[in-house]
Amino acid sequence: MVVVMKKEAKENQITKVLNKIDSLGLKAHLSRGKIRTIVGVMGDNSAVDTNCFESLDGVERVVPLLGPFKLASRDFKKENTVFSIDGSQIGGNKIIIMAGPCAIENREQIVETALAVKKAGAVALRGGAFKPRTSPYSFQGLGEEGLKLMAEARDMAGMAAVTEVTAPEQVALVAQYADVLQIGARNMQNFALLNAVGESHKPVLLKRGMSSTIEEFLNAAEYILSHNNPRVILCERGIRTFETYTRNTLDINAIPVLKSLTHLPVVVDPSHGTGKREYVAAVSKAAIAAGADGLIIEVHPDPEVALSDGAQSLRPHEFEELMKELKPIAEAVGRTL
Amino acid sequence: MVVVMKKEAKENQITKVLNKIDSLGLKAHLSRGKIRTIVGVMGDNSAVDTNCFESLDGVERVVPLLGPFKLASRDFKKENTVFSIDGSQIGGNKIIIMAGPCAIENREQIVETALAVKKAGAVALRGGAFKPRTSPYSFQGLGEEGLKLMAEARDMAGMAAVTEVTAPEQVALVAQYADVLQIGARNMQNFALLNAVGESHKPVLLKRGMSSTIEEFLNAAEYILSHNNPRVILCERGIRTFETYTRNTLDINAIPVLKSLTHLPVVVDPSHGTGKREYVAAVSKAAIAAGADGLIIEVHPDPEVALSDGAQSLRPHEFEELMKELKPIAEAVGRTL
Amino acid sequence: MVVVMKKEAKENQITKVLNKIDSLGLKAHLSRGKIRTIVGVMGDNSAVDTNCFESLDGVERVVPLLGPFKLASRDFKKENTVFSIDGSQIGGNKIIIMAGPCAIENREQIVETALAVKKAGAVALRGGAFKPRTSPYSFQGLGEEGLKLMAEARDMAGMAAVTEVTAPEQVALVAQYADVLQIGARNMQNFALLNAVGESHKPVLLKRGMSSTIEEFLNAAEYILSHNNPRVILCERGIRTFETYTRNTLDINAIPVLKSLTHLPVVVDPSHGTGKREYVAAVSKAAIAAGADGLIIEVHPDPEVALSDGAQSLRPHEFEELMKELKPIAEAVGRTL
Amino acid sequence: MVVVMKKEAKENQITKVLNKIDSLGLKAHLSRGKIRTIVGVMGDNSAVDTNCFESLDGVERVVPLLGPFKLASRDFKKENTVFSIDGSQIGGNKIIIMAGPCAIENREQIVETALAVKKAGAVALRGGAFKPRTSPYSFQGLGEEGLKLMAEARDMAGMAAVTEVTAPEQVALVAQYADVLQIGARNMQNFALLNAVGESHKPVLLKRGMSSTIEEFLNAAEYILSHNNPRVILCERGIRTFETYTRNTLDINAIPVLKSLTHLPVVVDPSHGTGKREYVAAVSKAAIAAGADGLIIEVHPDPEVALSDGAQSLRPHEFEELMKELKPIAEAVGRTL
Repeated sequence: MVVVMKKEAKENQITKVLNKIDSLGLKAHLSRGKIRTIVGVMGDNSAVDTNCFESLDGVERVVPLLGPFKLASRDFKKENTVFSIDGSQIGGNKIIIMAGPCAIENREQIVETALAVKKAGAVALRGGAFKPRTSPYSFQGLGEEGLKLMAEARDMAGMAAVTEVTAPEQVALVAQYADVLQIGARNMQNFALLNAVGESHKPVLLKRGMSSTIEEFLNAAEYILSHNNPRVILCERGIRTFETYTRNTLDINAIPVLKSLTHLPVVVDPSHGTGKREYVAAVSKAAIAAGADGLIIEVHPDPEVALSDGAQSLRPHEFEELMKELKPIAEAVGRTL
Repeated sequence: MVVVMKKEAKENQITKVLNKIDSLGLKAHLSRGKIRTIVGVMGDNSAVDTNCFESLDGVERVVPLLGPFKLASRDFKKENTVFSIDGSQIGGNKIIIMAGPCAIENREQIVETALAVKKAGAVALRGGAFKPRTSPYSFQGLGEEGLKLMAEARDMAGMAAVTEVTAPEQVALVAQYADVLQIGARNMQNFALLNAVGESHKPVLLKRGMSSTIEEFLNAAEYILSHNNPRVILCERGIRTFETYTRNTLDINAIPVLKSLTHLPVVVDPSHGTGKREYVAAVSKAAIAAGADGLIIEVHPDPEVALSDGAQSLRPHEFEELMKELKPIAEAVGRTL
Repeated sequence: MVVVMKKEAKENQITKVLNKIDSLGLKAHLSRGKIRTIVGVMGDNSAVDTNCFESLDGVERVVPLLGPFKLASRDFKKENTVFSIDGSQIGGNKIIIMAGPCAIENREQIVETALAVKKAGAVALRGGAFKPRTSPYSFQGLGEEGLKLMAEARDMAGMAAVTEVTAPEQVALVAQYADVLQIGARNMQNFALLNAVGESHKPVLLKRGMSSTIEEFLNAAEYILSHNNPRVILCERGIRTFETYTRNTLDINAIPVLKSLTHLPVVVDPSHGTGKREYVAAVSKAAIAAGADGLIIEVHPDPEVALSDGAQSLRPHEFEELMKELKPIAEAVGRTL
Repeated sequence: MVVVMKKEAKENQITKVLNKIDSLGLKAHLSRGKIRTIVGVMGDNSAVDTNCFESLDGVERVVPLLGPFKLASRDFKKENTVFSIDGSQIGGNKIIIMAGPCAIENREQIVETALAVKKAGAVALRGGAFKPRTSPYSFQGLGEEGLKLMAEARDMAGMAAVTEVTAPEQVALVAQYADVLQIGARNMQNFALLNAVGESHKPVLLKRGMSSTIEEFLNAAEYILSHNNPRVILCERGIRTFETYTRNTLDINAIPVLKSLTHLPVVVDPSHGTGKREYVAAVSKAAIAAGADGLIIEVHPDPEVALSDGAQSLRPHEFEELMKELKPIAEAVGRTL
């Protein structure tokens, strides 16, 4: 952390900064320039809030150097985190595909989808039973009934199941049925929920908030990791920008950035990232070319009657075709699908 | 809702749209142009998801006309919602000021602040006992101990108390101590929490999410209102933009927009809206001039030692001075303070 | 400027940084921490690009401390810049109102508007003769014919005239007719144009680009000032954000921020800032309450037939009413209108 | 275009809308619902401003259906536009790589770079002689001297040259030396400049403005095309978002979106899109996988002494390596490099 004093900062204001650093058990390095003074804060200050210094008079700004995240960092752990989801390794050489409907609607829909995506090469089934919706009047998911249908479909197809959990008190229930707990974008900073899934010790797929920085994203992961739950998958799913032609703007830069900052696996959701079926294939290929460890894709047997997100869902035959197109891209970056 | 067909849409695709409208109990108005066809969806479609149509082939886009929010709308209720918080009316002619520290730190701090802001004219004390923090290693608040201190300070000063609740299972506890439950920006779309505070029937101060549109904000309010809890205060607290000089960009436009779209009271948080003490006064005046019904301002007896948000907290004497400056502005817009 | 080295930076990489600092005639202050090394760059480095250091191996990031702008800075000149536009002082105690149509359409329109806004208290007439339009097929303004009509209307009403210039080769022509040259938001970083208006020595109204930071805005002003043209008015006119309900998001924070960073006058354009007539009054009041030195407002005798921006133009009687409402706000902040 | 009336719109307000449509030579389709009335505007309204209707009383909003761009549209021309740049076809099956330094600094630098990138497979040399810079005190390029050096280097290497033009009066000069005229992001809506390069009939590489929508981007291209200059290359170079970890956010979605909306070739600038050398390779691969027709990449023989953009410039050997990595990606999407 570097504390930059204002030009007109007084001697006693500098002293206050030095005292504060001392009181935190850290060391100060003072650089007095002709125009202003800069104070380097030395030692492990990863848990120190920049605000400790910003609130002092005479301070112009504070530049944090270590992200406060620690367990999530590549500095903490150099090699990639690789773990198994129902027998498939995520974070390793193989690219993992998760696919399924936005919402579980009925037995036929989820079973048909599971069998189709498994056949095409997906290793995990996605599907929501608890759906966070902008309006209280929209379909909110089938709840536990949906979880049961998902588990049945998963077992029939022989794959893993990923599903969203939206409140701390749901975690135990969802964990009974799911192999991976998903935290949705809107809940990325729902810290009570992050703590709860951390405690569950289930693998977690954490979606980036739609206006969260990469640093906030890694701090959210840190919440989960700090409960001694190391199995976290990061999911880039598009951010909110001024561009409205697509539902979100998929942040392709985030893939190499995350891969360099953290050891955790990184997957991409091209369905939410674009919001439109016709762009899912192009962006899926881009994600793998950029180094993603996997994809999570919405597939629905009949998107035209889907209760949610139909516009961005692939049909099973489109998904199958996409899987074929992804294969040479995976190989071009030295990986398998 | 207007469904715009693609230029190349086929007759059977148009028929599918008409059938879908019919199946929802709504009426279609077909306009066939030389270039494309437009289908107006008539009837109350406020609970119909645009996705129902977007997912149909041949549809280019769907334009929603009625916001899905209904109870929150001025169309539903023309006159301002006015209700009492511990004897002070919010939403009426008088502008309501809430003030206090970001976090409750200890008995002295909260009592001293309460007495000072009450004396200067605040009608409610703010202060957090459960603090959502970006990093798991930052101070997370005193929890129930903090609530007790807040209640004691409030009683000593003779005012109302506003405090944040961060998880559904906390609601009952917090409701014992607080007069107004605050939903923080990060939880604006934590629907389980919105449902829980809706059920509590306590007044709720709902902060706008930092990247939430006005429409999403009103839909979040709708969640609370739909539980038959009409006492919701909307709080504009700045949005996230590309500008980083200030912590957030206070959306001043949102004040007249919200006042025209909804009957609910609208308050402004200039502390988070700017993030810097020296800009709080200017933006507070602007908010009142623009028509806000109140302000919620961070005040700390000694911001330099504050455990959070010190940089944006006013000192008691600065707050007192601000209150004096706000008075003529309130009068200039025909209101009292 | 502070150069932060990577954790793994090698000794020879640090040496390269020190050598670079030396070669620029500046001094280095080295702070070696346990984890990483920080190098303060001392001396006047306002003209040094951060990129000089960012491109060096082993450098993690470079934190600029002095904005590169110098002549525009309050550090350079403490007191407000005040200058006269056709007899009215801008930047002083009096708040200056500029008003008129988006585009000059014909003699009747511009004369009628000039007389009406002058009568209501405006001191300058605005109106575009060269209109930058998103589509090449939209009305592009009357050109020189428009400038002549504007000058005639201005003379009849006895006020100043502000009009946009869109290319360097237009500057001489526009300067013949206008009292203030306006640089539009899309041209804020059209440096050839900034240089040309700098050379003209006419007063300049510089609009903030719709996605420009405050620092870029002040650097754009610096271009003009660096040609020894000190008469620059800064205009906040709304920035582009994710919120689409209003045309732009007026950045109210920018007013106190600019007033603290620079000595130049700051005005606000509530018409572009909101894009909707019904919100112009609220935001105009807010701007004055926040400390703006003036407003520039679109007024059209018949917005329903306006060739551009009709939706955000006030009618003359609405403008007159607004002027009455602004008066007590101006007085509440100790100013006159 | 669809005109949506307010709920409370009066009969005479609807009549005004109908009359306006009639006066524009278009046809109206009226849909009267229980709650509100919708008016479809039929006929070719691509040159009609939505503002014509937004400014009418009683109108809630206007939904444009046809983008105002016409010549740029796939509807206008189904097959890809393919043209030759110094013998290489752009827009066809082969992916075109342009590479070179941000700024031309001296003879050695530009010649060395040209030879290196040509050898590695680039078909065009990039390099700036007129540099738009945020601060007036930064290096602004060598001007005509730079153009001469660029032309010399290009001729020695046997390739095409792409360079930026920043003002209308420079176009003739730059066109003498360059094979492709580049319009920088800051000038995307500098319409005088767009008109000037349109008139030049040289191929144009048009960069997307950092906060321009895809629709504005295509309208900017339309300005050039409307001067009967069909050789326009669109360049996605990252947009400005809240994320500051990377210099810009490369909008990968824009690639398939542009390829579907327009027949013009689309290239990507991963150097500005990320701002950091270490992420250029990943994003280059992603761009090709997503369907880009080419890349424009910054390469500098010694980025550590570059006068601008060193942090995002590859060294020649890094570029050479990248070219090898891109080859299998190009093949995986059925193209050649």
